[in-house]
Amino acid sequence: MFQIASYETFQDGQVIFEDGSSGDWIYVLDEGEVEISKIVDGQKIVIEVLKPGDIFGEMAYIDKTPRSATATAKGKTVVGIIDRVFFDREFNKLSADFQQMLKAVAFRLRRTTEKSLELQKEKKG
Amino acid sequence: MFQIASYETFQDGQVIFEDGSSGDWIYVLDEGEVEISKIVDGQKIVIEVLKPGDIFGEMAYIDKTPRSATATAKGKTVVGIIDRVFFDREFNKLSADFQQMLKAVAFRLRRTTEKSLELQKEKKG
Repeated sequence: MFQIASYETFQDGQVIFEDGSSGDWIYVLDEGEVEISKIVDGQKIVIEVLKPGDIFGEMAYIDKTPRSATATAKGKTVVGIIDRVFFDREFNKLSADFQQMLKAVAFRLRRTTEKSLELQKEKKG
Repeated sequence: MFQIASYETFQDGQVIFEDGSSGDWIYVLDEGEVEISKIVDGQKIVIEVLKPGDIFGEMAYIDKTPRSATATAKGKTVVGIIDRVFFDREFNKLSADFQQMLKAVAFRLRRTTEKSLELQKEKKG
């Protein structure tokens, strides 16, 4: 359904993008699974495991901050990279107000994820 | 900065909207504080306390599902209701793909918030 610029294949354990890195491509998972995880105080915590059809990487696109987690292929995985030119054109159509609302949602998601990770770490630790 | 259709004043403890209710107005906090909370197994868990300038209520707007938490005024609170006609016009400018991406973000935020609440409940319980 999305306008895909290209497809990439990753083998089990290959990193698609890393926490803290720059880059704002948006992906849609086509085949396989992708693990979204973060290292908190030396412990890896899995945030979620994505299934085909799931979108990921959209946070960095929306708020233009570094990647907030690591995406790793689980098994052989095919991801589609969503056409940036197309997405930029869409985003730029929006008023500054609407863009700010979207950034507020992305910020809230980052904050909620961090809180959840802290709690998971406490639970483990 | 947002196009505000009207302002409403709430007294301490008054509910602005309730978890599970329908309604998709988006608010911007103008004065005072707003507590976002949820009852999990009979226990109230505070998700966050908003400050002036914060936007809230946008989740139900984006994904057209019931309110996922309760918003309550802390002290005397003034909220601006963002002009819906304006926002609808913006949203409708977007392609189905882009709208789907936004819904994916809203869904992820709901899921992450639920996970965080579960963990907080376990910690308390």
